[in-house]
Parts: sequence; structure tokens; C-alpha cells
Amino acid sequence: MSFTEGKTVRKRPKYLQIIDYIKEKIGNGEWPIGSKIPSQRTLAKHFEVNRSTVITALEELTADGLIEGRMGKGTVVINNTWTLLAKNSSPDWDQYVNSGIQQPSRRIVQEINTSESNPELIQLSKGELSNEIFPLAVMKDIMGKVSQNIEAFGYEEPKGYLPLREALSGYLRTIGIQASPSSILIVSGALQALQLISMGLLQRGSTVFLDQPSYLYSLHVFQSAGMNLTGLPMDKEGLLPNHIHMTKGERGRAILYTNPCFHNPTGILMSERRREEILTASEKNQLPIIEDDIYRELWIDNIPPAPIKTMDKNGHVLYLGSLSKTLSPGLRIGWMVGPEPVIERLSDIKMQTDYGSSSLSQRVAAEWLISGEYQQHLDYVRHQLKMRRRHVTIALETYMKNAAQWSIPEGGFFIWLKIIPSISMKLLYKKALAKGILLNLGSIYAQEKGNYIRLSYAYASLEDLQKGIYELGLIIGELASR
Amino acid sequence: MSFTEGKTVRKRPKYLQIIDYIKEKIGNGEWPIGSKIPSQRTLAKHFEVNRSTVITALEELTADGLIEGRMGKGTVVINNTWTLLAKNSSPDWDQYVNSGIQQPSRRIVQEINTSESNPELIQLSKGELSNEIFPLAVMKDIMGKVSQNIEAFGYEEPKGYLPLREALSGYLRTIGIQASPSSILIVSGALQALQLISMGLLQRGSTVFLDQPSYLYSLHVFQSAGMNLTGLPMDKEGLLPNHIHMTKGERGRAILYTNPCFHNPTGILMSERRREEILTASEKNQLPIIEDDIYRELWIDNIPPAPIKTMDKNGHVLYLGSLSKTLSPGLRIGWMVGPEPVIERLSDIKMQTDYGSSSLSQRVAAEWLISGEYQQHLDYVRHQLKMRRRHVTIALETYMKNAAQWSIPEGGFFIWLKIIPSISMKLLYKKALAKGILLNLGSIYAQEKGNYIRLSYAYASLEDLQKGIYELGLIIGELASR
Ligand SMILES: Cc1ncc(COP(=O)(O)O)c(C=O)c1O
Ligand SMILES: Cc1ncc(COP(=O)(O)O)c(C=O)c1O
Repeated sequence: MSFTEGKTVRKRPKYLQIIDYIKEKIGNGEWPIGSKIPSQRTLAKHFEVNRSTVITALEELTADGLIEGRMGKGTVVINNTWTLLAKNSSPDWDQYVNSGIQQPSRRIVQEINTSESNPELIQLSKGELSNEIFPLAVMKDIMGKVSQNIEAFGYEEPKGYLPLREALSGYLRTIGIQASPSSILIVSGALQALQLISMGLLQRGSTVFLDQPSYLYSLHVFQSAGMNLTGLPMDKEGLLPNHIHMTKGERGRAILYTNPCFHNPTGILMSERRREEILTASEKNQLPIIEDDIYRELWIDNIPPAPIKTMDKNGHVLYLGSLSKTLSPGLRIGWMVGPEPVIERLSDIKMQTDYGSSSLSQRVAAEWLISGEYQQHLDYVRHQLKMRRRHVTIALETYMKNAAQWSIPEGGFFIWLKIIPSISMKLLYKKALAKGILLNLGSIYAQEKGNYIRLSYAYASLEDLQKGIYELGLIIGELASR
Repeated sequence: MSFTEGKTVRKRPKYLQIIDYIKEKIGNGEWPIGSKIPSQRTLAKHFEVNRSTVITALEELTADGLIEGRMGKGTVVINNTWTLLAKNSSPDWDQYVNSGIQQPSRRIVQEINTSESNPELIQLSKGELSNEIFPLAVMKDIMGKVSQNIEAFGYEEPKGYLPLREALSGYLRTIGIQASPSSILIVSGALQALQLISMGLLQRGSTVFLDQPSYLYSLHVFQSAGMNLTGLPMDKEGLLPNHIHMTKGERGRAILYTNPCFHNPTGILMSERRREEILTASEKNQLPIIEDDIYRELWIDNIPPAPIKTMDKNGHVLYLGSLSKTLSPGLRIGWMVGPEPVIERLSDIKMQTDYGSSSLSQRVAAEWLISGEYQQHLDYVRHQLKMRRRHVTIALETYMKNAAQWSIPEGGFFIWLKIIPSISMKLLYKKALAKGILLNLGSIYAQEKGNYIRLSYAYASLEDLQKGIYELGLIIGELASR
């Protein structure tokens, strides 16, 4: 549980303040019966008191019958002022919280989600562009322009704001994809597209083939809906389609997910030949493809091979794009291109889940595309990433030469670091965190990739990147010499 | 299927244009094998030709082996230029589209979703404020202000943008709810809150008790996730809690959904006494409540009784609010207040489905609240609704006195019209649509309420409201006299 942010603190004795605070939380139902209260250490830190003061407060609350210390569970709310009068009538939220259909994120992912908004940590793995690259001036201009021209806006059309779909249709042509606005669905980020596909096209028990490792393993989108993930090995050209083996029962209900450009987490760029092979395999197996291409525009050295979608003459491919990795994830704007009946089905589900994406975000996104500012911004981002990649590879050469192996990616955000010495990766993670460095371990993306780290050169400042890699090198050295 | 919007038309003979158009759609996979092409009538209208020209084109495409007319199914794509060369390798999208977990919206709801963006129809039922009430000038100001002050923005915190949660905490105090920012979750509209609850707190087979009729019956959120809806009868004071009967198996996994202020679709305002009774029943049955209060601020005559949430000392109530009905649904901003462990669980699921709501919308929403403009706007909206309600009740008195019965709501958007003569409501719907009037029939909100219409005085212009009601009266009279 977190604290009431920005609360004014009264001038009463500290232990009474603590009692007041906890009573209020319990009294207004924010901390219902059965819930755990923050640890003594956390409370002591928050109220800036000694642990003994906290203990005094907790003892009084215990004597009042409001809380109870439980072995191995910490301190739990057992009553509130009302149930002390009547009988306990609180709903058993614990049971609800633990029995919903959607699986919770893995503990480590939840921890990372929370730690990622901690500005004091060095984010050595974060899959997001640095604030330094954020085009603040142009964003302000564009928002200003949109606000001047805006008309009253309400619920949008099911497939999304038409001028944005038109602009995307034009943009997609520049990467070789012919898609009319009616076969484009606007989504709140590529993640939502995956969610919609899991709700709308697959069945409980369907198989999702995917790159291994994969970003998808860090999520529960498909697993929560009862689908099975089947990882396919990759080489330097991308996933190996000859490893697709389908049982008869799987046919007609499986799907293939791949992230061919600057793959998350490995950075691998799929070759043109491999793209052809995958499409052929997919046609042979009647296996539709989700082509998650959200890193495409972040090439550094050369324009990547054309999307698989451009070779797809039979409507096998659902193509995903997003502004999250190139402009800002806060816009929550992505798109999906596919055969119209599929887009129509998924736009209906989109309406059922959130009635469409933000009108403001859609208008701002459209203006970025229409004005040509987006393309210009992409040039700038590529330039920045090139510089950052150089900086980081130098730091790796300097501080990690004997500690890790890596390939230099041709674009995107990520370097997939294989840690050479056999050390405890959990300990590495903890020791790094103690030094203020947040890491995404390989195990998030595939169980057997435990000895990898996803390094991102996109987010932290150059100074922090250098410092982080230096510290990482030291910690690995230390752990290896134990 | 819809047409490519905004496509330039070439100067070729019309029937060749039609052939080109269809071949392109088929060739690039937008109309995959097995999909239905638009009807002859639709094609004729789109290309502004006689039906015979369309038939010529279709005959040629049939001769080419690309399409085939099928009894009772219309014309279907059976091949494309590539499959004509090779064997048919298109994925069977039909099977995917029809087997996903989420049920499609009911045909009638899909039709309404699409027709609602048709500006030529008189929207006599639409649950949205009129563009005339949209605060365009202030919205522009606020967006301008936000764009000037904005900083780089990325993925947001799991519970949403903190200044918005702080502002909401202050706003909620004005309606009697004590909620700290940490027990508030920002959602993309109240609909998404329902979706998250269905994914995160309930199980397959859980029961959802609800008002009958209810807005919830127009959706498939809970049903698609395997829950059962159990309607509870209502009187003039709201739902009747003594009709809650739970089996032993239901206990601890059921939930109660209610919409106590200016209920959609009936307009009923729940009395204070009834609120107490419902909370008591919920406590007795350990049955948590979803209090959907998104119409609360739209009172016209008197401030409504305090939310059930204000009496809730044991954390029974999940409270939902939204800016959709008071300001604009296009912002896609709503909120949920509840016990922290529940909010935490649902914020994790929110991250798994779309990584949070639009940063722009969240900032604009925060500014509306912080600046005080929101409260001022609410005054204006109430004033407008009062005037519109008067206007509509006069029209009803004038044109529908013998055709329908209704109560005058004390706020919100809706008048629940009971049609007196026994007529075919389907025919009424169709005849109204032929006259350019779109209606939501009662059957959308409860099967046995077929002889009702949800009338909204919030959306159409005064002129259209008057005209619509006049025409409706005529059609009913005509159908009744058959
Ligand atoms: C491969 C991949 N797909 C999808 C996403 C989701 O991005 P969005 O912000 O567009 O939802 C991410 C974000 O990390 C990603 O790495
Ligand atoms: C009772 C009720 N709840 C929720 C919603 C969804 O509103 P939002 O736009 O906030 O998702 C509506 C919209 O019609 C409604 O009438």
C-alpha cells in the first residue's frame, strides 16, 4: 500500500499522528479488514520517527482491537470502528482480488512498473526514449495548433478518428503497405492491439507461436485468456519458421507473433529472406501472423527490409505500429492493419472495452503525421540513437569486456547482454538496485535466458549510462570473484 | 464492409472503375477470401451508377473466378490473383472472427454505434451532451494552457497521473467521499472500469446483480468473461434489495452493479433511504457494490442524496465517475475509488491492457478540475439540461399524450417512454429510421421492456427534438390504427 501523497501533517505528537493516520485509512475503508498495513520500517521512514515510536502507535491500535500482528504476514487490519460495534461485515476482498481471471503481472514486472517512475534510479533497461529526446517545442506547437482548430468532440467512430486513419494510410504507403482507412484500427498502443486480438480472435486453448525470447513473455495478455505460448528459437536473422509444428487441433486457431525489426529484447533485425520464409510457412500452415513492427523507424544504419505485410497478398498478416517508441508512449496511440472483417470485429471489441482512444491524442497524432513533423522527428531520433549506441558500446568495451558478450544492434533501443561469469543474477539485480540501478533481467523474456540483461541505450542520460555500465561491471566482477 | 474513404476516382469507364476497385481490395488482402463484398445497391450508390453497371462489373469478376454469388449470403470473394495461380492459402479468418472469447455487440448495438456518427440522423436517444453545450472556448484555453506548461511525458504511473488523482481527491470531497490519491485509479472512461473489474475481481460463473433494466444489458463485458447477470426489479426509488437472493455458492464471488443517480435508461434517482437499505443488504450478504455514479452532477432540481460510498465504512463500494457525460466522452477519462488492495490489483490489470490513459487527456482533465472551470461548466450544463427537459416535456405533452407514458426525471439525460398502444416496436424503429430518426428501444436494456424507448433530451438540437417527437407521435398513431 502506498501513502496518501501530499497530505498535510498536523502538529500532534508523532505517535498520535501515526494513530490518526492509520485510523483514518481504516475508518474510511481504504484499508479494509484483512489488508496488510505498511511495515514498521516504512512507517518510521514516512513519519521520520524511530521504530520505537511506530511500535508505541501500533501497540495502542492493537489494544483497541483494530489491528493484529500475524506471524509471517505482517500487521493486518482486523476490525474498524464500525465492525467493533457490529459484527464484521467487510467483503472478503482478498478472495476477489485473488480469483479474477486476468493473472497479475509477475512480481518482478510490477516492481519494475513502479520503480520505472522513480526518477532517482538509473534506468538501464527502460524501453522508452529519453526525455532529452522528447520534442518538447514541436509538441507544444502542435498541441497549440490542435487546440486552436479543435471542434466539439464526443465518442469517436469505432475504428478511430478518420483524419488520423487517412494520415496513417499515407504514412503506411511510405513503408510499402497499401491500406485504406477502413482497414486500419486506431488503438491505445500496440499492447491494446494484442489484448483485442486475444479477446476477439483466439479461443481458450489456442496456441500463440512466438520468438523466444520475447517481450510477450513479460505480459499475461494471452495466458490469462487461456492461450498457450510456444516459443520458437531464433538465430541472427530472426525466428526459425521450420520449428513451427502444428497438431491438427491447433490448425485454424493458432497465431504467430513476431517482432521482426529490432526485436525486444534481443535487438535482432529479421532478414528479408527470413521474412519470406516465415510468410511461406504461415501460408502453408494457414497460420495468421501478428507483425509487431513498432521499432521499425528506429533504424540507425540502413532502412530495414520491407514489412512482411508488404508481401502478404492473402491477408495473412495483422500489422501493428505505434507512436510509443518513436514519439511518446504517453499519447497511447497505435494502429493495427488487417483484412476488413478482422478489423471490424476488433473495432467492435474496442468499443466494448473503452469506446475508443482519446480524441485529443488522436488529433495530436494526426497533426504530427500531416504536418510532416513526424518524419523530421524520426531523423532526429535516429541521429540521437546512433550517438547513444556508440557511447554505450564504448562503455561496454571499456568496463564489461570480460564480463559480457553482445552484438551491436542495427537499430532500436536494446543490447542483449550475455553475462559470462556464472553468477547469481538475482543477486546482481539486487546489488545493482542497491546502487540505484534498475535492470530488466533476461528471465522476464524467457526462462532459460536468465543470464542475460536487456540493456537500453535509449533512456538514461549519457552520464548515467556510462556510470551504470561501470557499476555493473564492478558488481559482476565482485560476484564472479566470490 | 465500408468503402475506402476519400479515394480519388480515376477517369475510366465506370464498370472498369468498379472492377479496379474490387480487384485492389481483394489483391491487397483487405477483402480476404471468404469475405462478403458490398451489396449491388451499395456499390451502385457509391459509384453513382445504375445497378446494371454494377452487375456488368460483377459478372466479369465472376468470370475471372474472383467472386461468386451465393444463395442467401450475397457475393463472396473466392479467390485472389495469387490463389488463382497457387492453391488457396488464405487463413480462414471467418473461423477466427467467430470463435474469439469476447462476444460481439448485439447487431442492433453495432448498428447504433455506427449510425450514431451519422450527422444526418436525428439522434433521439443518444447518451451524450449536444455539441451545442460543448465548452469549446474554455476547452481551447485549457488545452492551450496545458500545451504551454507541458513537460516531456512518457508511460504514466500505474494508477494514473498524480496531479489528476490529487485534483479528483479534492473533487470527491465536495460530494462527501474521502479518498486519498492512492485509492483512486484513472481509467479510460467508466466502461473500462467495468472491463477491469470483470477481468480482475470476478470468476467465470460469478453473478452480477444489477438494476433491471440497465445500461449493462447493452454490453457484453461481464457475459463474455463468463459471468451471469441477475436483474433486480426497481421501483421509483431505485432497485429493490430485498430481491437479492444468493445461493451459498454465489457468496464471496458475486457483485452488485447499480446506477443510482439518473439511471440509464429510466432516469430514476435512488432515494437516500434506498441507498441505506442497499448498503445494509450488501453488508449482510458480503456483496460488494459497484456504484456507477457518472450522471450525479447532472441534477436539475435538487442536489441528489450523497453517494452510497459516503456511508460505506467497510470498503464495500467501488465508486465510478467519468467526465464523459458532463464534459466530453472524447477525453476518455473516468475514475474508480475503492479499497487500496483492490485499486492496486486493478491498476496492474490496467497496465496489462493499455499501459494507462492518454497523458494529454489526463493533463487536460486535471486542468479542468484545478482551475475551477469544471464546476462552472457543470452549472451551465444543468441550466441547459433544465431548458431542454422543459422543451421536450412540452413536446411530449403536445404530440405524445395518448401515445406514451413517462415520468419527468430530476436530472440526467433520459426520459423512459412507455409506448401505450400495442404496436410492433421493430416496425416503429424501422419507420423512424426511414424518417431519419434513430431510436434506442427498451429491449436493449432489458428484454421485457420492449415497449419502451429511451429518449434523450441531451443531444439533438431543440428543433430536432421537437421534430423527432412530432414524427414519432405520427408513426405510433399510424401503427396503432392499423
Ligand atoms: C515489442 C513491443 N510491442 C508492443 C509494446 C507496447 O507498446 P505500446 O506503448 O504501443 O502499447 C512494446 C512496449 O514495450 C514492445 O516492446
Ligand atoms: C450508466 C453508464 N455507465 C457507464 C457508461 C460509460 O461511460 P464512459 O464514457 O465513462 O466509459 C455509460 C455511457 O453511456 C453509462 O450510461
